[in-house]
Amino acid sequence: MSDDLFRFSIPITVRYRDIDAQGHVNHAAYFSFMEQARVEYVRQLGLWTSGRWDDLGFIIVEACCTYERPIYYGDPVVVWLRVSRLGNKSLHMAYRIEAAGALAAQARTVSVCYDYRVGATRPIPESWRATITEYEPALRRLSR
Amino acid sequence: MSDDLFRFSIPITVRYRDIDAQGHVNHAAYFSFMEQARVEYVRQLGLWTSGRWDDLGFIIVEACCTYERPIYYGDPVVVWLRVSRLGNKSLHMAYRIEAAGALAAQARTVSVCYDYRVGATRPIPESWRATITEYEPALRRLSR
Amino acid sequence: MSDDLFRFSIPITVRYRDIDAQGHVNHAAYFSFMEQARVEYVRQLGLWTSGRWDDLGFIIVEACCTYERPIYYGDPVVVWLRVSRLGNKSLHMAYRIEAAGALAAQARTVSVCYDYRVGATRPIPESWRATITEYEPALRRLSR
Amino acid sequence: MSDDLFRFSIPITVRYRDIDAQGHVNHAAYFSFMEQARVEYVRQLGLWTSGRWDDLGFIIVEACCTYERPIYYGDPVVVWLRVSRLGNKSLHMAYRIEAAGALAAQARTVSVCYDYRVGATRPIPESWRATITEYEPALRRLSR
Repeated sequence: MSDDLFRFSIPITVRYRDIDAQGHVNHAAYFSFMEQARVEYVRQLGLWTSGRWDDLGFIIVEACCTYERPIYYGDPVVVWLRVSRLGNKSLHMAYRIEAAGALAAQARTVSVCYDYRVGATRPIPESWRATITEYEPALRRLSR
Repeated sequence: MSDDLFRFSIPITVRYRDIDAQGHVNHAAYFSFMEQARVEYVRQLGLWTSGRWDDLGFIIVEACCTYERPIYYGDPVVVWLRVSRLGNKSLHMAYRIEAAGALAAQARTVSVCYDYRVGATRPIPESWRATITEYEPALRRLSR
Repeated sequence: MSDDLFRFSIPITVRYRDIDAQGHVNHAAYFSFMEQARVEYVRQLGLWTSGRWDDLGFIIVEACCTYERPIYYGDPVVVWLRVSRLGNKSLHMAYRIEAAGALAAQARTVSVCYDYRVGATRPIPESWRATITEYEPALRRLSR
Repeated sequence: MSDDLFRFSIPITVRYRDIDAQGHVNHAAYFSFMEQARVEYVRQLGLWTSGRWDDLGFIIVEACCTYERPIYYGDPVVVWLRVSRLGNKSLHMAYRIEAAGALAAQARTVSVCYDYRVGATRPIPESWRATITEYEPALRRLSR
């Protein structure tokens, strides 16, 4: 996985409450950091405009993280996210978490588009597909 | 993965604070549920007796979860955990999370033994290896 | 405040994730423990039956906690809750948190009945008032 | 309480995980926001320089918050903190939480200086007293 595939990132300020009894950021907090990146991705790309949580239409079906080094309080954290694959209903995302300038974790998730009002999965809306494909340089290269 | 390999489990009471804006247990909370099972595993098997966090000697290097169905407030949750493999320094664990009697998630983690006082990884203590091998029926079968 | 005024309680299992860098239960987690008691109170008294969060009709306007001693991992925790006063729109609640058999914290909250669908406060429903007054021995004594 | 007494503030980025089932920032998260302000206060004023959690020498004994309005995802949040009183062992702090430019909450805490290595309270170090008194305009006015 080459770094230059990532175009989208958010900064995270580590909170005292992210630190656990072992003195570093708790491993589950990494998933909350990535979740934050996902929400901001769909918000900043205009895929979620209502601000209503019912309209935030996807659900996690898989999440994997490889931890490279601990994150400490005060470390500036950046979460990089890219959509690595678009299925019919599924969005595959890849992540890099950097802390204090070094790679702290790599991860991937699979989400499925979901209609919370109906309570069922659904295909990725065409508008999402167009926007994401336009935004992600690596996706466009793959689809050619 | 056959169910009868799991011998250890803990109950989890879902808290209101585990529920997110989508109305179900947040995906990152599953990792906290499994973390709770890990801590209880080493505590109940007598591998961690001091109660000092510095002595809780392992660190997560990989965590993967596959989500099968949402967990709702009020669902009785059980987290099953087993050690699936013992490396030189690494403990591989497998998990099943059941909610309201149905499979809600399957997961696995890799931990590495770690000396928090020295700040370095270390081989699994022989006493841990003996206790875990004795406790885990599947591990004993594999090692024959 | 005399102990025998409390009739309702829930047990809390301290989670590893409740522990902070100082090695004891984080002070904010006490508020989550009490929140859990509130949700269970309205659920177990039949004041919230739909299971829909939109129907859980109150909102916190004040919360105060006095910490008596730390809570550690493994301590059995019990949260006692009672409604100490019913206003027109407001519910005043008192709490005692016990850990390992000793008083760990005392607290109080003021909530206001709230209609999440309309986005406005409202008077306490008469059915709530009747049920709570019937349930709380101290309230009945006060209202005579 | 006049606004111009506050000199110290930190920004908080609301996370998806701060939002609860009711769709706004959970009431307990406000206490984590204020905790973050406390840690930054002692760090930025040079009262805690080691970065070791054992050296972060105070413990919360009281925390009260009055909620003025909900905080939503996307609201820019600022937490203002000032030391309102210095006792022999105790630090009294006052807080204002602003969200989207409006007052969202007011709060106060009482902390006591604590030596985590010894496990006992202790008087406020003179260096802390001097630094805080120098920094806080309102404290200096009060002490004349």
